[in-house]
Amino acid sequence: MTERKPSPLFTADLAVVNVGLASFSDNLRREGVRTVQVDWRPEAGGDPEMLALLDRLRGPDGELLPAIAAANAAALARLLAAKPVITGIGRAGEVIPGMRRDLVLHAGPPVTWERMCGPMRGAVIGGLIYEGLAAHPDEAAALAASGRISFEPCHHHRAVGPMAGIVTASMPVWIIENTAFGNRAFSTLNEGLGKVLRYGAYSDEVIDRLRWIGRTLAPSLAAAIAARGPVDLQTLIAQALQMGDEVHNRNRAATSLLIRTLAAHLAGVENGADALRFMDGNDHFFLNLSMAACKSALDPTMGIANSTMVSTMARNGTDFGVRVSGLGEQWFTAPSPMVEGLYLPGFSEADAAPDIGDSVITETAGIGGFAMAAAPAIVQFVGGSASRALAFTRSMYEITLGENPAYRIPALDFRGTPAGVELTRVVATGVAPVVNTGIAHREPGIGMVGAGLVRPPLECFRAALRQFADSFNEPD
Amino acid sequence: MTERKPSPLFTADLAVVNVGLASFSDNLRREGVRTVQVDWRPEAGGDPEMLALLDRLRGPDGELLPAIAAANAAALARLLAAKPVITGIGRAGEVIPGMRRDLVLHAGPPVTWERMCGPMRGAVIGGLIYEGLAAHPDEAAALAASGRISFEPCHHHRAVGPMAGIVTASMPVWIIENTAFGNRAFSTLNEGLGKVLRYGAYSDEVIDRLRWIGRTLAPSLAAAIAARGPVDLQTLIAQALQMGDEVHNRNRAATSLLIRTLAAHLAGVENGADALRFMDGNDHFFLNLSMAACKSALDPTMGIANSTMVSTMARNGTDFGVRVSGLGEQWFTAPSPMVEGLYLPGFSEADAAPDIGDSVITETAGIGGFAMAAAPAIVQFVGGSASRALAFTRSMYEITLGENPAYRIPALDFRGTPAGVELTRVVATGVAPVVNTGIAHREPGIGMVGAGLVRPPLECFRAALRQFADSFNEPD
Repeated sequence: MTERKPSPLFTADLAVVNVGLASFSDNLRREGVRTVQVDWRPEAGGDPEMLALLDRLRGPDGELLPAIAAANAAALARLLAAKPVITGIGRAGEVIPGMRRDLVLHAGPPVTWERMCGPMRGAVIGGLIYEGLAAHPDEAAALAASGRISFEPCHHHRAVGPMAGIVTASMPVWIIENTAFGNRAFSTLNEGLGKVLRYGAYSDEVIDRLRWIGRTLAPSLAAAIAARGPVDLQTLIAQALQMGDEVHNRNRAATSLLIRTLAAHLAGVENGADALRFMDGNDHFFLNLSMAACKSALDPTMGIANSTMVSTMARNGTDFGVRVSGLGEQWFTAPSPMVEGLYLPGFSEADAAPDIGDSVITETAGIGGFAMAAAPAIVQFVGGSASRALAFTRSMYEITLGENPAYRIPALDFRGTPAGVELTRVVATGVAPVVNTGIAHREPGIGMVGAGLVRPPLECFRAALRQFADSFNEPD
Repeated sequence: MTERKPSPLFTADLAVVNVGLASFSDNLRREGVRTVQVDWRPEAGGDPEMLALLDRLRGPDGELLPAIAAANAAALARLLAAKPVITGIGRAGEVIPGMRRDLVLHAGPPVTWERMCGPMRGAVIGGLIYEGLAAHPDEAAALAASGRISFEPCHHHRAVGPMAGIVTASMPVWIIENTAFGNRAFSTLNEGLGKVLRYGAYSDEVIDRLRWIGRTLAPSLAAAIAARGPVDLQTLIAQALQMGDEVHNRNRAATSLLIRTLAAHLAGVENGADALRFMDGNDHFFLNLSMAACKSALDPTMGIANSTMVSTMARNGTDFGVRVSGLGEQWFTAPSPMVEGLYLPGFSEADAAPDIGDSVITETAGIGGFAMAAAPAIVQFVGGSASRALAFTRSMYEITLGENPAYRIPALDFRGTPAGVELTRVVATGVAPVVNTGIAHREPGIGMVGAGLVRPPLECFRAALRQFADSFNEPD
């Protein structure tokens, strides 16, 4: 670039503060004028429809109307009051409400077999083989397409599942209780990384591992928990956040803490050494517990009239869906985005399925990507720099209702994690939640290909705002 | 403060850059003059003797003479090449070179019974009772004073001990091997916090715990390690630094990682469940392993002719001592300083003994206080803020020869830890190493009262520099 002489139009002492388009201040700077660029975007991207909807929900002071603010305070208070504990392990068919043998639960909002992405189809195939409902993949695919199997979201049954999130009746599941409200949440036991069911793999080794989990691991863990008593997940997560985890895509500390919590008890039960060896070999073992803890914390926030707090985010690999407290069970969806991340050797973006899984329940509860500042080492797994991890967390305070005093981030001088995503702020700022996630191969039967970062499509939030504003009647 | 009008002596455009005394620029600023204060201290505090010594070791370019620089590169290379592994556990009297029943090893440089601080006397009393050489505290104190017991530093026997650092012949010790050089290092098994021998306590519960460690814990761990094979401590420490530990005063992650590494093997040995329970209850369990790993890494750096790298720092509660690679086994001491820190309920600075223990071997090897940026949560234990933890690590790069590529700090975008304290830089900059440490009660028999931060007295380094410069002959 060539140096230009200051234009005679401007005196040396002129200084300009520019708000908005950076190109304007760039031009001035090239003319030798001192400029300060202020990062500013028009509210809701300047969209007249969204601005009108937002105006209907705000008072003359620009704040949310008192009825909405009060409902949000109540929803946030419920989220922050949660006390999730592990109480045991059971068979899905016996403990999950409404579960039955011809029902397959999946991640994300509702989706039919026809619209399912590759890895979810692969996991359904594996699930039906594991369940003994099909002998081989072709038979399983035919059964899945036959109409004789029902598909429903985990979220409709108090459960959450990472990636494809497939749960069948015989699978063992963690039983988590939010003791502050008495509600339960469920999730399967984590299988590890690579060729695993939740990433769409269904080969013999995958099914054999699931059978070992059901026959050996789950009974050992159940016996150890019975001997020890309930395990407080809030304390465990709080510690892990001080040990470099964000408990979505980095669970090494939480898995280590779980192991040391259970080790002495596992030493006294059948196959306890095998259980300890398996957990030691799987740094993601805690993920499913983190998810179920967050599910149990968020379920009591659903259905609070007039609240714009987001109570669910989830994706099935075809659609990304959100639910909003004041709008109850209704999903607002948009096509699942692609993930930006790092790929395992031999794989690239061309192999990736769209964003998938219920694991974004962690971000919905204010951890995961929202707590990246606690987990700078995660950038080795999902890409980016440690300073970027700090910036992600800081930006999430813009779209959340409060901070979680139980979950503190050392690098931010022990500030609480940003908690309670607020619908109007997401639409107004255009700042979408930041999500850490794994990446599945787009074809069934292959498995994990990488990990990275993703943002939900803003359209989900815009659709929810439409519905909320249309049905909102300010109380007298 | 009152606002003053700019003095007519100065024009509005005058700007001053002030180097040195801040009061000068403060005065100008009060006169309305824009000033920039540059933090600058005269080299070696302006001490003419030290400046003359430094000049003898430097070339016209101000750099250390080539013979010294080359020796330092060799010493640092040895430190960075270290590969410490746990190979087993043995009885001190059987595995530590020169150990015998009437010898008591202690932390820090040599010290007589007469000059020992309270907590070290307390730990000697407990050690003699544990060893069966005395039946009660009075008899132990009389025996210690009788001349029939010898006292020598752990460091003279390839060992290190936290706080009082007392080792007697019957105690079980970790056997660490630096496989890059074949040398061994030894340390006792950590007892936990509070009323424990290393903090000078010697009541029945202290002695009973030591007996349980010797009879139950040590054999279980030894059997588990024999079943598993050697445990790589470098990998374990590297992981812990990414999980919020600095492995001196915060060892929660490293202890968790050690537990998960051994858990499956402990499940298969006698009393394994008890061993797991004890380790789970003691977040400092890894400290003694961290120390022995550092000792094994530093011993091969001793005695490299012309090297000014610090190969040992240690304190006995009376004296702080350092040893320098090129000066071999000679100690340079000054009175032990007091620790600044946080106290346990019921205790205050008035209760504290001076700085004590071999645990500063971790800082000598470039971790501990030097890696505080990796462990922001430690400020809850030793005081200060997370940003101060970052500043401590950054300042240690000023006095070290290089960075350890095996030990990386996420919050500094994975920069290696500052490694290899260099004598002339400490004297020239006046920046003393920063050390995390525990605080013992100054009276024997009580135990831990707090934890905090301390800096070695610069006089140790000045004394070593005198000796080094006096004996240095530039090679032809």
